[in-house]
Amino acid sequence: MNNFRQVSPLYTDLYQLTMAQAYFKNGMHKQRASFDYFFRKIPFKGGYVVFAGLHDLLELTENLVFTDYDLDYLAESGFDKDFVNHLREFRFRGDVISVREGDVVFPFEPVIRVEGTLLETQLIETLLLNVVNFQSLIATKASRMRFAAGNRILSDFGLRRAQSFGAMHASRAAVIGGFNSTSNVLAAQRYKIPFAGTMAHSFIESFGDELTAFRAYAKAFPDNSIFLVDTYNTLFKGIPNAIKVAKEMKEEGHMLKGIRLDSGDLAYLSKKAREMLDYDGFEDVKIIVSNQLDEYVIKSLLEQKAPIDIFGVGTSLITGKPEAALDGVYKLAHVNDRNVLKISDNLQKTTLPGKKKILRYFDREGLFYADAVVMTTETDINRMINPFEKHKSLSLKGFRCEELLYTAMKDGKMTHLPENPQKINERLKTRLNLLPAEHHRFDFPHIYKVGISEKVLKTRDELLNKYS
Amino acid sequence: MNNFRQVSPLYTDLYQLTMAQAYFKNGMHKQRASFDYFFRKIPFKGGYVVFAGLHDLLELTENLVFTDYDLDYLAESGFDKDFVNHLREFRFRGDVISVREGDVVFPFEPVIRVEGTLLETQLIETLLLNVVNFQSLIATKASRMRFAAGNRILSDFGLRRAQSFGAMHASRAAVIGGFNSTSNVLAAQRYKIPFAGTMAHSFIESFGDELTAFRAYAKAFPDNSIFLVDTYNTLFKGIPNAIKVAKEMKEEGHMLKGIRLDSGDLAYLSKKAREMLDYDGFEDVKIIVSNQLDEYVIKSLLEQKAPIDIFGVGTSLITGKPEAALDGVYKLAHVNDRNVLKISDNLQKTTLPGKKKILRYFDREGLFYADAVVMTTETDINRMINPFEKHKSLSLKGFRCEELLYTAMKDGKMTHLPENPQKINERLKTRLNLLPAEHHRFDFPHIYKVGISEKVLKTRDELLNKYS
Repeated sequence: MNNFRQVSPLYTDLYQLTMAQAYFKNGMHKQRASFDYFFRKIPFKGGYVVFAGLHDLLELTENLVFTDYDLDYLAESGFDKDFVNHLREFRFRGDVISVREGDVVFPFEPVIRVEGTLLETQLIETLLLNVVNFQSLIATKASRMRFAAGNRILSDFGLRRAQSFGAMHASRAAVIGGFNSTSNVLAAQRYKIPFAGTMAHSFIESFGDELTAFRAYAKAFPDNSIFLVDTYNTLFKGIPNAIKVAKEMKEEGHMLKGIRLDSGDLAYLSKKAREMLDYDGFEDVKIIVSNQLDEYVIKSLLEQKAPIDIFGVGTSLITGKPEAALDGVYKLAHVNDRNVLKISDNLQKTTLPGKKKILRYFDREGLFYADAVVMTTETDINRMINPFEKHKSLSLKGFRCEELLYTAMKDGKMTHLPENPQKINERLKTRLNLLPAEHHRFDFPHIYKVGISEKVLKTRDELLNKYS
Repeated sequence: MNNFRQVSPLYTDLYQLTMAQAYFKNGMHKQRASFDYFFRKIPFKGGYVVFAGLHDLLELTENLVFTDYDLDYLAESGFDKDFVNHLREFRFRGDVISVREGDVVFPFEPVIRVEGTLLETQLIETLLLNVVNFQSLIATKASRMRFAAGNRILSDFGLRRAQSFGAMHASRAAVIGGFNSTSNVLAAQRYKIPFAGTMAHSFIESFGDELTAFRAYAKAFPDNSIFLVDTYNTLFKGIPNAIKVAKEMKEEGHMLKGIRLDSGDLAYLSKKAREMLDYDGFEDVKIIVSNQLDEYVIKSLLEQKAPIDIFGVGTSLITGKPEAALDGVYKLAHVNDRNVLKISDNLQKTTLPGKKKILRYFDREGLFYADAVVMTTETDINRMINPFEKHKSLSLKGFRCEELLYTAMKDGKMTHLPENPQKINERLKTRLNLLPAEHHRFDFPHIYKVGISEKVLKTRDELLNKYS
């Protein structure tokens, strides 16, 4: 059964395996390496990224084993016999040092550091990027919708428009970002998150008329019915029929939970619906809307004072539309006791060498002030430097700081139990409260400062000179 | 182990299960129903959609079984005990009547018809949409890149930027759309498609200098080496070093396969690289490029006569950027011997009632002329009507036609063995050759005509009158 807790190590780019074989044949596969995961661009023109996906990555990594079926496939495909045999014993036994899920992170800082043998650190690259890029994208998108929706309920209705099995991680990340529930029952079961749902047009049509359909549904779910009211005509049929059945339910001691609007002008229809429901004393019946929502539509609806209680969001949440992907990369920083870098004509694409960590500095009010990328051997620093414009620097003297990275996996074993996505969202809320307001807005948010220590700068410049 | 051949039936929207319970409690779950899958909008502003995903859908559907773990979860979540017990015996035993994978399809035509009990047809809705929407999106995107690339080689390098496990179906759909290979080894194994890969910057860096790294790789893969030449400096270091090692390989009777450019101006660098390689007699060494490619970049590079042999495409292929999702829906058309429809103020969102099929008409040259949506009881028709503007019609008299739908699943069993994605691409090529050129172009392609029979129109209008 596909439980999404395990995947074959063949779930990787071919070149990871060919490079691994080349390392093996050259006797380098056991050299120690340190890789950084970081991204360069915040999606959605936003001011921050919500880090997510770590737990799935660690669980999948812990479970990585080549089966005979996998090994036979590699051998038949031309891989070296000794190398294939070596893979038989493969387990990831390295360390993963990472930001906590639900923290906010920024471009060019090493959000995850992976240490281990060259072979094992290389073999998890693709999986790490595949899982963390996507969940961070979706958690970020979800947090933007949470920002727009205030304290209204947000429910993930995206499964049918998801990029097939990507839905599982997306529904988890949505809750990390601030969604209350998902329609995806398997994700609800797998990640212990609340599920939610209403009814489809087909349900109404299969009865032929709304009244009969509503009554049948109320009979099956007397205390948990949400009627879809736009199958034939929302204002003249759907809502009056819903009210009629709600009255019948009331007589039997039950309460209609809500109505759902899935088409038309949602601002106009929600106001009309609220009036009609209130007129008949159904102030507690919720109004749920769906249909092509995103953070901008939610914001606009609430600015128009649309009396909406619950937003059901599909495509734009579950796919992170219009961004599709976070551009996170995984770059070698240290190998066999050497610091290394990749050079580019574009300094922004030149990597930062060495084993590094992140120090987050707080301002006098206790809010996030700046992040400094420093060597793991450094503690507090007095000044950080702009990594791309050396003449720019920022004094950090006297500011309190904390280390962002913690050891999430040690010698291939997770150091902690899984956290519920809702609990991770609690952490996110705390962290977002510490991020100054200017970084939250949708239009041209203030850019959070990320700098590097003098030591990191010096190490990079020395290597740049050596290779240029 | 996660083999992506099976998924829990909980991989669905909650409302499918609540509606199913309501049908069950009202004694309607065994009524016969017929649903249509169709989409409304062609993605990428294109002229056609490549239909894909059917085989995965059928395999997953055939394997749908509620485990005790699933049933316990539903019972604990408040589902009715009798209903949960009923699900214990659930298997999909309905029929799936579908267009063939690799055919081209158009808006508003019923690409798939699902027939079975109300319960079973409803329970597979979300899975069907999840799988078919996405694979059709990606196959369509891939076919656009194939159109741009002519006979150059296209390789899917997208796994790291995929929407997590969505990668598996995307890599399959890419080959259906015209890609030659994938970097995703598990997808290559699972779907029997070719894999391809090169090397990463980290490989070069772990050796400290390019020459040593290239030699080490050549030692491991003497007849299958592609050197990445942009780690330090493409023109002054990477390519000269690649040529140096290529000469050494030649002396030992081996041939360098190619070099890869992953940054900078790919048109400029590929021309320079070609010159340098040719000057030293390496006319057969291929030039591979990657880095933010899509159909427009590929088209532009080839218009500039960039001598590129292989394109490695990531994000835009694997996510279908900028579209994210195909808007396919699954709508009830017939239940318990009644034709049904969903009404909308927007006639384009009003569904077509009744059990229907598609007739594809050919023009005098034998090319695709128009598709007519007709009742299953109809054969050839003389005239089709525009579904949204009744006064417009098109004569089909004397034109040859074929039926597009075939029975892909009968009583819950697949009627045929899986086809290799490359074989499905052969079908696509044949079909695209029959689609007039005006539907292929990227800018404002000609709109393919889809109409309905008089009988379908009459059925819809009668129901519209009844419910309005």
